[in-house]
Amino acid sequence: MERAHNFFAGPAALPLEVLKKAQEELLDFKGTGCSVMELSHRSKQFQTVIDEAEADLKKILGLGDDYSVLFLQGGATHQFIMLAMNALHDGDEADYIVSGKWASRAFEEGGLQGKANLVATSENLEKKFSALPEVKKENMNPNAKYLHFTSNNTIFGTQSFDYPKPLEGVGLVCDMSSDFLSHKFDASKFDMIYAGAQKNIGPAGVTVVVIKKSWAEKTFTKKLPKTLDYNFQIKKGSMFNTPACFNIYITGLVFKWVLGLGGLEGTEKRNREKSEAIYGMIDAYPDFFTGYIKNKAHRSWMNVCFNLPNAELEAKFIAEATAKNMLGLKGYRDLGGIRASMYNSTSPESVKALVDFMDDFRKRNI
Amino acid sequence: MERAHNFFAGPAALPLEVLKKAQEELLDFKGTGCSVMELSHRSKQFQTVIDEAEADLKKILGLGDDYSVLFLQGGATHQFIMLAMNALHDGDEADYIVSGKWASRAFEEGGLQGKANLVATSENLEKKFSALPEVKKENMNPNAKYLHFTSNNTIFGTQSFDYPKPLEGVGLVCDMSSDFLSHKFDASKFDMIYAGAQKNIGPAGVTVVVIKKSWAEKTFTKKLPKTLDYNFQIKKGSMFNTPACFNIYITGLVFKWVLGLGGLEGTEKRNREKSEAIYGMIDAYPDFFTGYIKNKAHRSWMNVCFNLPNAELEAKFIAEATAKNMLGLKGYRDLGGIRASMYNSTSPESVKALVDFMDDFRKRNI
Repeated sequence: MERAHNFFAGPAALPLEVLKKAQEELLDFKGTGCSVMELSHRSKQFQTVIDEAEADLKKILGLGDDYSVLFLQGGATHQFIMLAMNALHDGDEADYIVSGKWASRAFEEGGLQGKANLVATSENLEKKFSALPEVKKENMNPNAKYLHFTSNNTIFGTQSFDYPKPLEGVGLVCDMSSDFLSHKFDASKFDMIYAGAQKNIGPAGVTVVVIKKSWAEKTFTKKLPKTLDYNFQIKKGSMFNTPACFNIYITGLVFKWVLGLGGLEGTEKRNREKSEAIYGMIDAYPDFFTGYIKNKAHRSWMNVCFNLPNAELEAKFIAEATAKNMLGLKGYRDLGGIRASMYNSTSPESVKALVDFMDDFRKRNI
Repeated sequence: MERAHNFFAGPAALPLEVLKKAQEELLDFKGTGCSVMELSHRSKQFQTVIDEAEADLKKILGLGDDYSVLFLQGGATHQFIMLAMNALHDGDEADYIVSGKWASRAFEEGGLQGKANLVATSENLEKKFSALPEVKKENMNPNAKYLHFTSNNTIFGTQSFDYPKPLEGVGLVCDMSSDFLSHKFDASKFDMIYAGAQKNIGPAGVTVVVIKKSWAEKTFTKKLPKTLDYNFQIKKGSMFNTPACFNIYITGLVFKWVLGLGGLEGTEKRNREKSEAIYGMIDAYPDFFTGYIKNKAHRSWMNVCFNLPNAELEAKFIAEATAKNMLGLKGYRDLGGIRASMYNSTSPESVKALVDFMDDFRKRNI
């Protein structure tokens, strides 16, 4: 079977060379006679895997010893409550920017634990979440423990390149699950970044948390159950209990692949070109392709949502694309239409195949 | 490289045929042109994976529609607090039997959330946890929400085959992480069983929770953050957010392998024979091999802990065994000595190799 063109919103494509390496090593990891799945997490071999993954990610992000990288479980969704449990006690407050469905869930779960302030939302636009919300300093709370935002909105296809600036003394926390490592950015501006792996950096089942240690010490002061305590997880190097070893191993291979591309400069070039190709087609034929996001500065490079002239054509488009081995193009159930998700690992060739198909389909159906 | 003889305490051996199947399918799962890691968790193909895993496990356990199987994240350790958060509110009580280190941690975390009663412990024995604690009905609490115990104690090498009977109306909850599916037992006696996968049933990163739905509905009544709420996870079929897809896939392959062995009768026969081989050697030469557990009825089939006449011989034993490709034999740091962990997937051939080596080593070093 030929490799599919993978446009799933997540779990999604992984680099072919990462999969081949994993396949090659699956029965014998570095001469141990064991699969990496069969090695004790306390073995030297696995310690090297997790140490290299942390070091490679810090290299990609240009971060030093003042940051820790955690490899946790439960998905980004679990971070919504874990963050709030660590930071918010006795009526503590946090600020949230709500730019999409997951941002909205983070805000709701924050409110279960403390006072969650809605700084800005784009939910009430005529087309829900069809732009990034306008963030005003005067709506921010100087007592907030953190300002939380979501850098890319998978369902609606917006992405923030111009990050919000929190008030003095307020931590900046971002859910980067759906655009982590996709372009150059200044990671040192953040106190905490988290990302479920399954879109841009690995398989489902591991969540990467990049955290500024001094901020974590200052902000997370209450005794918590051990698996939920960031400071304890930092102290234990994510290994208080057995982590998701294989998932960390694959994520580490993806980090090496990113370094091989030239780090964030490399992913940025690759992702910019892919997104220009598809948005170029949408913009060239606005009578046939209607993008969900009108403001070009808010368009996501990762998730491109668009409609065709009618629902029958959309169904036909998806069916024909599927027959051509292009998977995952059906829009999210809340939105309908077409969504092409093109994360770091989605190859330029897959995007070219899709753009060529869009062109051909349009010609045959105008 | 030849396959190692894997005696790690966890993560540990997986069946060779499971690994081979995973290797074969790694780039193309059932003609999709994608790795199973690259498939949306909402795809039909992945839904089939998780549905089959649940159905196969219920078949192995002889359970029907009144039970749900959840595939969660965070390890068994995370279940310590998740159970307590779901069940204990406003001073609610729970009973704990403390038979080892993880049982003790479960008890501690329970106490962070409610009133955790210590029903029985073997911590204070002259040799810590060297037997199962004696459980007396009169120490149980009729108002407890549940009675929690740990069926196998990985560090010390005790295993309970004769399960405690809770008082009328009290739920029975067991951490079976280190002996799940290792022998025949009546699963319908339990209200909840949980097991981190990485010892007996799969790779690290997925925790199986078998739960009686009517009991969960009755017992878990408070609104909780979504990822921490058992009833919500049951309602969503473990897929509120993206689960650890690949880990569930491998675990499902292990369940099929267990069915192929003849289910629990098959694993029981296999594990009994392996444990008889190694305890037979220990019992035959008590001057050379000193088992940590004296009471034969309390001995674990999964983790066999023993000492040699002195620490130098133990170090030599481990070094020679490692050179013969037998991995993971060093005892846990609290205990020292030798520990051979032999979970479901550890092959009889590996155990035979170890027993032959023990015999040879003894002859050369008496």
